[in-house]
Amino acid sequence: MTDQNAKGRILALCGGVGGAKLALGLDKIAGERLTVAVNTGDDFSHLGLHIAPDLDTVLYTLAGLADPERGWGRADESWNFMAALNELGADDWFQLGDKDLAIHVERTRRLAGGETLSAVTRDIGARLGLSAHIVPMSDDPVRTQVITDEGNLPFQHYFVRAQCRPRVKSIDFEGAETAALSEEFSAALTDPNLAAIVICPSNPYLSVDPLLSLSGVKEGLARSPAPVIAVSPLIHGQAVKGPTVKIMAELEIEPDALSIARHYGGVLDGIIVDVEDEGSVGPLRAMGLEARAAATYMKSLSDRIGLARCVMEFADDLNASKT
Amino acid sequence: MTDQNAKGRILALCGGVGGAKLALGLDKIAGERLTVAVNTGDDFSHLGLHIAPDLDTVLYTLAGLADPERGWGRADESWNFMAALNELGADDWFQLGDKDLAIHVERTRRLAGGETLSAVTRDIGARLGLSAHIVPMSDDPVRTQVITDEGNLPFQHYFVRAQCRPRVKSIDFEGAETAALSEEFSAALTDPNLAAIVICPSNPYLSVDPLLSLSGVKEGLARSPAPVIAVSPLIHGQAVKGPTVKIMAELEIEPDALSIARHYGGVLDGIIVDVEDEGSVGPLRAMGLEARAAATYMKSLSDRIGLARCVMEFADDLNASKT
Repeated sequence: MTDQNAKGRILALCGGVGGAKLALGLDKIAGERLTVAVNTGDDFSHLGLHIAPDLDTVLYTLAGLADPERGWGRADESWNFMAALNELGADDWFQLGDKDLAIHVERTRRLAGGETLSAVTRDIGARLGLSAHIVPMSDDPVRTQVITDEGNLPFQHYFVRAQCRPRVKSIDFEGAETAALSEEFSAALTDPNLAAIVICPSNPYLSVDPLLSLSGVKEGLARSPAPVIAVSPLIHGQAVKGPTVKIMAELEIEPDALSIARHYGGVLDGIIVDVEDEGSVGPLRAMGLEARAAATYMKSLSDRIGLARCVMEFADDLNASKT
Repeated sequence: MTDQNAKGRILALCGGVGGAKLALGLDKIAGERLTVAVNTGDDFSHLGLHIAPDLDTVLYTLAGLADPERGWGRADESWNFMAALNELGADDWFQLGDKDLAIHVERTRRLAGGETLSAVTRDIGARLGLSAHIVPMSDDPVRTQVITDEGNLPFQHYFVRAQCRPRVKSIDFEGAETAALSEEFSAALTDPNLAAIVICPSNPYLSVDPLLSLSGVKEGLARSPAPVIAVSPLIHGQAVKGPTVKIMAELEIEPDALSIARHYGGVLDGIIVDVEDEGSVGPLRAMGLEARAAATYMKSLSDRIGLARCVMEFADDLNASKT
């Protein structure tokens, strides 16, 4: 089985930084057999530019251009544009580096010319030398709205401007009911050669739910003969980065892998938890889910590749047990 | 008379680099009494951004931000955006510095929001601390087309991409017949307190003619009680910068101040030629024009202020001779 699966395709569902780390690991072992369907609920128009933060994080991460510390934008970045923009009195709460700006300007120009976000992303990926297929979840606009005690905030206003301070009451994905899956996401989801579908360790509520909220995705995951495996974004009740645990508290959800498994519900075949949370493997299995522990804290490239290998071994085993 | 004129307003007609130098000199002596009406025939849409090269050169020059060597863009500029854009395979024949980009992004955003170019330029000027009024010649699009032996080229394609190599047959200003003067240009042109109208030493054919081609400008200059004074952009048959003399040769025009005076025709009351061309003062007077020689090669700020003073003294004398 392993040999056959080694040739199978992988579909990864991914948000920003945490998910992108695993996507990089999967890319290193699967290359052009990997399709990464990326959340576009965080996309927004800013300074007249179409900004797609999660797409860019995945593109930059797989191209080796991402800033390793900051979690967004490019390494070795300069900020002269922002400084000049500040002189002109323009909005400067959303930081755009000088190099990073190129992708926003180029994408905005091409979208205005009538190209799809998929087509633009495909070309940019090719230009950056990527062999994996990075695809937006949809070419139609879906906009994450965070319903908070300070009102309804567009995602970036909540995440960047308000620095996740407001208390989250619920999260809406405007446009999700009518947005069509991108052609490549849809094709990957029904690909008969799929060896695994991986839900990357991005924020389940903010970054993965937009993908799952699209019409047909949950059904596609449930129907797929390939195992659907999530990697829990929590380690010992904490997220490596971002407001996952804060939001879980505000939604009165226990910050553990069982909550994550329950959240993804019927779409999962298996879940990987961190070695520190090995104790939850039993309870997860008791929920009727395949579960195993692995080192999910990805500091180095070899950590990323190591976790990707664990995910694919898990998928191999799940595929083998079906046949 | 001098005291009264010192309080009079000045209207300068200006293109890019050469003209902007004199505009800076005029700004230093007149400040908020100065209105600079700037050529927008060079404006174009590039990478989805509204680029206004002459407006920016004047804004940057008066704000002390212009690159002193290059003749366009900002001093202490970085080019990380262009390098990243190049990686993405986008058009990179038109260089946009990282700091410079701020003005294009901010202007494009505000124009898309329905503001006029005049309003955006006014705010940017105020933000940059300018007291002089920098105004686009029109808020309507006028686009300079250079008719060459290699076809009809939009201005920037001729000037930047083809580096002025094609042979010029004629020059068109698309939209000039229907474009309305900007409110501030129109108001300045009919201001009863005008002490002088100055045609700056920009390229007469490419940079000043767009202003003169607008409906009502030549009539306004002829009707104005204020003296209209041009500063010849030529010194001993050469331009300090740019293709003026090359274009004059291609149009079979002698590269001297008499040709410049003839080109501006009936709108002029006086012309200033360089001290090296003092010999043309007599022939210019024989044409019925007031003429005098001054140091027009502006290397330093004091050269710019010195020339501005000469222009205003000339205007004072012309005003005095009328009364």
